[in-house]
Amino acid sequence: MASNFVYDNREQKFIIKEWLDGEKLFGFDAFKDFCSIDDVDMILDQALKVSKEVIAPTNDDGENYPMRLENGKVEVPDSFRSAYAFLNENGWGPSHANPEEVAMPNLLLHMCEEFMGAANYPLMQYIGLTSGSAGLIQAFGDQAVKEMFLPKMFSGDWAGTMCLTETGGGSDVGDLLTKAYPTDDPRVYKIRGTKCFISQGDHELTENIVHLVLARVDGAAPGTKGISLFVVPKYTVNEGGSVGESNDVTTVAIEHKLGMNGSATAMLNFGDNDNCYGILLGNAPDENGRGEGMAQMFQMVNGARMGTGHTALSLAAVAYNNAVEYAKERVQGRPFGQGKKASRVRIIEHEDVRRMLMVQKATIEAMRALIYQTYYYIDIAAHSNDADEKRRAQRRMEVNTPLVKAYCSDTAWQLTAEAIQVYGGYGYSEEYPAARCARDVKILTIWEGTNFIQSLDLLGRKWSMEKGTVFAEWLADIDKFITQHQDNQEFSREINILSTACQSYQEMRNFILKSLQQKPQLMPLYSTRILHSTAMVYCGMILMEQALLAAKQLEQLDAGNSEYNFYKGKVETAKFYLRNIVPKVMMTRDVVLDADTSAIEIPEEAF
Amino acid sequence: MASNFVYDNREQKFIIKEWLDGEKLFGFDAFKDFCSIDDVDMILDQALKVSKEVIAPTNDDGENYPMRLENGKVEVPDSFRSAYAFLNENGWGPSHANPEEVAMPNLLLHMCEEFMGAANYPLMQYIGLTSGSAGLIQAFGDQAVKEMFLPKMFSGDWAGTMCLTETGGGSDVGDLLTKAYPTDDPRVYKIRGTKCFISQGDHELTENIVHLVLARVDGAAPGTKGISLFVVPKYTVNEGGSVGESNDVTTVAIEHKLGMNGSATAMLNFGDNDNCYGILLGNAPDENGRGEGMAQMFQMVNGARMGTGHTALSLAAVAYNNAVEYAKERVQGRPFGQGKKASRVRIIEHEDVRRMLMVQKATIEAMRALIYQTYYYIDIAAHSNDADEKRRAQRRMEVNTPLVKAYCSDTAWQLTAEAIQVYGGYGYSEEYPAARCARDVKILTIWEGTNFIQSLDLLGRKWSMEKGTVFAEWLADIDKFITQHQDNQEFSREINILSTACQSYQEMRNFILKSLQQKPQLMPLYSTRILHSTAMVYCGMILMEQALLAAKQLEQLDAGNSEYNFYKGKVETAKFYLRNIVPKVMMTRDVVLDADTSAIEIPEEAF
Repeated sequence: MASNFVYDNREQKFIIKEWLDGEKLFGFDAFKDFCSIDDVDMILDQALKVSKEVIAPTNDDGENYPMRLENGKVEVPDSFRSAYAFLNENGWGPSHANPEEVAMPNLLLHMCEEFMGAANYPLMQYIGLTSGSAGLIQAFGDQAVKEMFLPKMFSGDWAGTMCLTETGGGSDVGDLLTKAYPTDDPRVYKIRGTKCFISQGDHELTENIVHLVLARVDGAAPGTKGISLFVVPKYTVNEGGSVGESNDVTTVAIEHKLGMNGSATAMLNFGDNDNCYGILLGNAPDENGRGEGMAQMFQMVNGARMGTGHTALSLAAVAYNNAVEYAKERVQGRPFGQGKKASRVRIIEHEDVRRMLMVQKATIEAMRALIYQTYYYIDIAAHSNDADEKRRAQRRMEVNTPLVKAYCSDTAWQLTAEAIQVYGGYGYSEEYPAARCARDVKILTIWEGTNFIQSLDLLGRKWSMEKGTVFAEWLADIDKFITQHQDNQEFSREINILSTACQSYQEMRNFILKSLQQKPQLMPLYSTRILHSTAMVYCGMILMEQALLAAKQLEQLDAGNSEYNFYKGKVETAKFYLRNIVPKVMMTRDVVLDADTSAIEIPEEAF
Repeated sequence: MASNFVYDNREQKFIIKEWLDGEKLFGFDAFKDFCSIDDVDMILDQALKVSKEVIAPTNDDGENYPMRLENGKVEVPDSFRSAYAFLNENGWGPSHANPEEVAMPNLLLHMCEEFMGAANYPLMQYIGLTSGSAGLIQAFGDQAVKEMFLPKMFSGDWAGTMCLTETGGGSDVGDLLTKAYPTDDPRVYKIRGTKCFISQGDHELTENIVHLVLARVDGAAPGTKGISLFVVPKYTVNEGGSVGESNDVTTVAIEHKLGMNGSATAMLNFGDNDNCYGILLGNAPDENGRGEGMAQMFQMVNGARMGTGHTALSLAAVAYNNAVEYAKERVQGRPFGQGKKASRVRIIEHEDVRRMLMVQKATIEAMRALIYQTYYYIDIAAHSNDADEKRRAQRRMEVNTPLVKAYCSDTAWQLTAEAIQVYGGYGYSEEYPAARCARDVKILTIWEGTNFIQSLDLLGRKWSMEKGTVFAEWLADIDKFITQHQDNQEFSREINILSTACQSYQEMRNFILKSLQQKPQLMPLYSTRILHSTAMVYCGMILMEQALLAAKQLEQLDAGNSEYNFYKGKVETAKFYLRNIVPKVMMTRDVVLDADTSAIEIPEEAF
């Protein structure tokens, strides 16, 4: 019952067909023979149906039968097997990662995956991780390794994982201790080491699991530069492609986690019996001991960070959708100020419940706009034939990615709390879905680079990338938007707030950049808060873009029908975001410019 | 392992011995023959020791063996039995509720209970609920009912519960459906109905459970005014006081909750077989059908709300204390800006980790100051012989109580998330304590009146109580403090922020009060945010009071010793709170005065 899948796709259709230029994407060579903007409704409807009918019914099983290591095996619920098979058979599996099969823009695919992630994220993670690791083999493997693994991975017969973290370091990848020792075959190395927090690290869902393992070739350079990437299957692969014997990969433990219980998070030992072999991707470390592993891994980092923010959206949205449904049914309390004799009303009629729902709705739509704007850029960067447009899109994506990852995941924790609160006592019960969404969502602030790492990526890298021109262009988009609409009557208050926020943002940015010489510690001390401000300014702009479109539509609609309500909702939601949430940027400006360093001055012993 | 109890009591000693006038409390008649300010250290040390050695070791058991209904019984872990017996035997049980045994001020008792709640809140809840319900019997029962129940409740042999909520209503107590039918004995009624979310509603920890049940006498008035309060034991009580047969109270279900797993939250049926009897407390409904139940229940409401905020403090603090310990040990990453060749450092050396710890430390100390300031007023209101002082304290307590309940519980959710984040991936693991603290703490925003109800209590009742004089006095305290210290050099920036915040606060208050005629819905739309601002302004003042004291101490201390670090910590913590957290008040002022009503304008169908 806790898995209640309540979802709609009107907003996604608006984004791809009305707000963004979806048609442009379908015109690219990669897609034009496969689908068009006219297929969008059908595809989104189909994805929603699969999410509801095939995926959502499995969600409780992952929760109720948390993965355990028993007799050396990690079983998955039966329902996972049948849903997983259905997804693979119907084109929703890792086949999307097969470049020969890609048939729809990233933007549309991720809209479909938004529903699917909301229906049962851990199940979809089996597919996502396989896609990601197959993508690396595709990009860096030789023909032999591709033939050995990719067909089975694209079909979903074998799963994939990413093995980065070790007990001594999550953020310090460069200090990993896992080693690779050369063998007589220059492609093959013996692997020895322990990896932890490996999502889907072990399970019986597929007949083999293909681990992509970061390790240091014996004698290679220290730090990140000496790292290489290896393909290490759980079971060896026979000639002809059948699954062979154990490759000496041992599951030591399965984590007992706050959430994501449908996903087995494993600690894995490689080479306990000195009998674990991995195939090197790319070249062996050069004469300076430099491996290619980190660069290879970074190819998937942006995608993984986007995916993390995207998952936060799915989980926050499904909690919100359920809370709305509950608020429309639950009768409790009288209208404010009408005394005890008034009739009880449904709680959606109460101002504070509306506030809680509106905080969720506005922030979720801000997240959704930010995320899909960025996937849109990713499609253009990958497929446009216009070099200038391609470059511009790539640069926008570089700035937006840490915002997607960190703003969405940090915020989702607050949003799921509001969903719980709408339910009152029932929100605290695991019989309703809000509590679980809160539990599931918390990991997203941590994995794929903690949110602090995202904030440093933004302030330390993206702000100054290509001599600051990348970020200057990004800011110019917002300035241009403000200038363009500064005389707008309907939204004058909102545009004004956006303008003040943008100005405040630039002040704090200049302040931090100027302080880098004298007080370098101000950047890391304030970077988390500044990342949030960055996202709020940007989201303010794109929600206003949507509101302007919606306002135009409203001119031609009669009040009361569902389309009217949708567009009216967009207008009010943008207003709410600008007038209730964006002002935090001005506050953060004041705090940053005040430049308090008490957190640094305080003696460690005083904590 | 997840129950790691890490706690210190230096801060509590500072509060009672240096900041507040603890000595005054011990001089009251009620205490002066039992203890003095000189006993404080010993009592606090003893409570900390009991928390660590007796209570904390039971915490994991409540989590690992969540209470279940099996064969009609709800077992508790064995470790709960022995710890519960120890507490009762050593004066830490419900005997505190016995007016003949009270021997220490509320302030000191709650400091002890802060440690105990941090060590295992669900276990302490068995005691807290018994104290609360015994208090009601004490206040409103006749001699016979007191003699029948109180000795066994004070000794902890029998437990107590509060049965208010029904499935149709948590916030709507007045609409309850449980009925009471007169019998031949005017004191005794037949009870019929269903109650849900009853904390510790059933268990085998004690040989009997004394439910205090809100019900409507058949024919009494509708709404809250027709409600009466009944003592309904799980088992009847024989002449002589031994436990008799079942009183027809049936446990229908135990909730599967997000947290607080050591506490059985039950749905109870009363009178399924028409054989459940309750003893009326106080008088039967009068000729207008008015019962005394709600008024009686309200006697414990303030205490329960205080206790809820107090529990939020315990849980946030124990999560923080653990995070600090981890941050001092965990080595990860290089200092900002020092390149990859620098040595790795403990994460407490990173600016963003310090920010996360400081957000927790500053807010926890703000909560602690607010809570103990209020318990101090409660002691004065109850025991002072100076009528004027008594009245003043009572009035301060009235304003502070909703702040304690709602500000502390709302904030604790964010604080526990920061604690999780300090741990990185380990924070998401239930092997470490932060995740559980987050799960446990969330209920506190809901029970004992949702936090929205608290905000209406503040804005709708306390603001205007006694023609507004109560709140005016409360505000005058802050104004006076600011005037007194406006020339302070060391804290000029902080005093200035406090002054601006206080002014902003009064502006938004005046704005809301003025709008009550034209736009009454602004009050409930903004009340939650305004409650937070109220708490932040007040906490800003009392943390400054502490910082001023600490700064004076620092003049006489050499850097580096533990006392120096404690006082230096107080100074920096107050600075952090004023300069990083209080500015939110100014933002909220801007938002309130902007008076956006999009959350109300939006059509319901658009959610």
